[in-house]
Amino acid sequence: MKQISLLGATGSIGTQTLEVIRQHPEHFELVAMSVGKNIDLALKQILEFKPSLVSVQSKFDLDKMKDLVPVQTKLVWGEEGLIEVATSAKATIVVNAVLGSVGLAPTLAAIKERKTIAIANKETLVTAGHIITEYAKKYEVQLLPVDSEHSAIFQALNGEDINDVEKLILTASGGSFRDLKRSELTEVTVDQALNHPNWSMGAKITIDSATMMNKGLEVIEAHWLFDISYEKIEVVLHKESIIHSMVEYIDGSVLAQLGTPDMKVPIQYALTYPNRIKNKGNDRLKLWEIGKLHFSQLDFERYRCVELAYEAGRIGGTLPTVLNAANEIAVAYFLEKRLSFLGIETMIEKALEKHNVISRPSLEEIIATDLETRTLMHSLIK
Amino acid sequence: MKQISLLGATGSIGTQTLEVIRQHPEHFELVAMSVGKNIDLALKQILEFKPSLVSVQSKFDLDKMKDLVPVQTKLVWGEEGLIEVATSAKATIVVNAVLGSVGLAPTLAAIKERKTIAIANKETLVTAGHIITEYAKKYEVQLLPVDSEHSAIFQALNGEDINDVEKLILTASGGSFRDLKRSELTEVTVDQALNHPNWSMGAKITIDSATMMNKGLEVIEAHWLFDISYEKIEVVLHKESIIHSMVEYIDGSVLAQLGTPDMKVPIQYALTYPNRIKNKGNDRLKLWEIGKLHFSQLDFERYRCVELAYEAGRIGGTLPTVLNAANEIAVAYFLEKRLSFLGIETMIEKALEKHNVISRPSLEEIIATDLETRTLMHSLIK
Repeated sequence: MKQISLLGATGSIGTQTLEVIRQHPEHFELVAMSVGKNIDLALKQILEFKPSLVSVQSKFDLDKMKDLVPVQTKLVWGEEGLIEVATSAKATIVVNAVLGSVGLAPTLAAIKERKTIAIANKETLVTAGHIITEYAKKYEVQLLPVDSEHSAIFQALNGEDINDVEKLILTASGGSFRDLKRSELTEVTVDQALNHPNWSMGAKITIDSATMMNKGLEVIEAHWLFDISYEKIEVVLHKESIIHSMVEYIDGSVLAQLGTPDMKVPIQYALTYPNRIKNKGNDRLKLWEIGKLHFSQLDFERYRCVELAYEAGRIGGTLPTVLNAANEIAVAYFLEKRLSFLGIETMIEKALEKHNVISRPSLEEIIATDLETRTLMHSLIK
Repeated sequence: MKQISLLGATGSIGTQTLEVIRQHPEHFELVAMSVGKNIDLALKQILEFKPSLVSVQSKFDLDKMKDLVPVQTKLVWGEEGLIEVATSAKATIVVNAVLGSVGLAPTLAAIKERKTIAIANKETLVTAGHIITEYAKKYEVQLLPVDSEHSAIFQALNGEDINDVEKLILTASGGSFRDLKRSELTEVTVDQALNHPNWSMGAKITIDSATMMNKGLEVIEAHWLFDISYEKIEVVLHKESIIHSMVEYIDGSVLAQLGTPDMKVPIQYALTYPNRIKNKGNDRLKLWEIGKLHFSQLDFERYRCVELAYEAGRIGGTLPTVLNAANEIAVAYFLEKRLSFLGIETMIEKALEKHNVISRPSLEEIIATDLETRTLMHSLIK
């Protein structure tokens, strides 16, 4: 039985994590969780899973909910509440499925308490990869990937020596606009961008998938998770999202993890690692029904965000923090229809250009850079 | 440095094994080898690798060669010679790359001497899987697959628990005649059958690939190598031979090994296992250059030999021995143009029908069954 603390229970990864827990009550118990703006869903989840600790976003939410939750459920709120959930004494594994760089502080707090970290919040690693990995090493804590690509690589590395890796090959579906030329991207709408061909995900990550910034962030995430140089990380377009990613070894062998596009598989693997358990009720991969898998090379001019991410990653320091914060703000403006689709990358590039990089930044410098970038982006876009 | 004894040095797998040894003189040393009918090639190999022990097929060959080999090379011959090579004190690993069931006795002898066995000779496992695996367990000897499919499965099992396997999925190119309907197979010639679309292999295995008996034998081989029931072994058609095979786990994850169709990769992996070393001078897989991978379901009526193999495997006992021996003779007759292509499966089916199965046969019963089947086939076909 594993005791789970879930940060971001009402989001896309959060609800799917709860589905995995629901399917396997003999293996998993939800002991603590944090929730977002969707209070109605949060209440349903609390009544079903009866966690002993729940963090909400505001004091206002807490007051609204306090008479509706079971007596054994303690309610807390805000950044402190999030950290209380991340460090809950009852939990052995913390699933970080919050959105954006807000996941950073609770992750560090959980590592200090030697919780195993299942990390679905890629912004945490993008923004503060060197600090997170240093902490994980120091406190001997395992970082388990939840992203399908990184879970695939993690599985393809199982039983292998990291020194035998020639390169990591991340697959990319190409997102909602993969069949459009760059010149056709000027007029695309939010609704079109939100229509991902393969995966059902939250809004932010679906837009990141259309710009392919998602893949760029994943490249940086892979760099930190697997301690691999950027020269050894490749992206290949694979529109079916069946091969979730690959590892090429020095002997020419390539190991890949495949499956139907279902996030519950990598979520469950992170929760059961190093074991596997029966996956209930999910579709099995039937390659003969799919018939064909397609692959093509990534065009960095077409997918400018991927190149920006490689550049930010290679230069390092505070630049990935700028990339990530600028992207969060740009995507938010795009979703509010206040910025065009191609405007996202233009604004991110401006933010990157204006930044004076601090190398090996402290946590305070990262938080300051994150805030400065957001302020800058608001002033640039408005 | 690994000391290698190579059974079947002049065959297709044998010469490619020597190529791997040639590429890595710092890792491998050839200490003993057996050769087939190609004496000229054998002499060249002996002069290059200077093994201390070489077995030839006949006393006649030995007399022809004895003044032409280096003084430090001892020549032996026949079945006894083969066993002397397989048990050579200097060798730590024995590569069994001979053709047909002649590989059985030397494999058992090598296991008794606690040599690691790299097994490219699938007939050995098909014919006497229960004995080989019993011996391997008893003498704590590892059986390492060399076939690309089994090497792929072996790699996809690395670091995993065999109890978590849902099924093994062997990929099959479909062989030389994969684009022909069954009705079009009546007139095909030996030259057409020998023209394999992906792999460069010996004549017997290329014909086995056209009939897909090769895949049937691989199903039985996989059953023994990985101790998996036939219900959990599937075959999927994949004409590019890029995904070499897969393992589906109980959680729905599928792990696959991919690569260019180059036997030197699985050969080298068997020789370096559990490590990997740089593969020199081989093509790297570039999926974007290949563009598409195709998959389709196996039609057991189109590929009757696969069904015969499953049936023989499931019933077990001496029946796989009959399948294998009948196939060897039928293919030999086909290559001599004395039997039609579809005649191969018809004659094998007759041999299977006529046989009274002995369950859990002894080595003697297997050898007797093998001989009886060959005699029967000669009488049936002549």
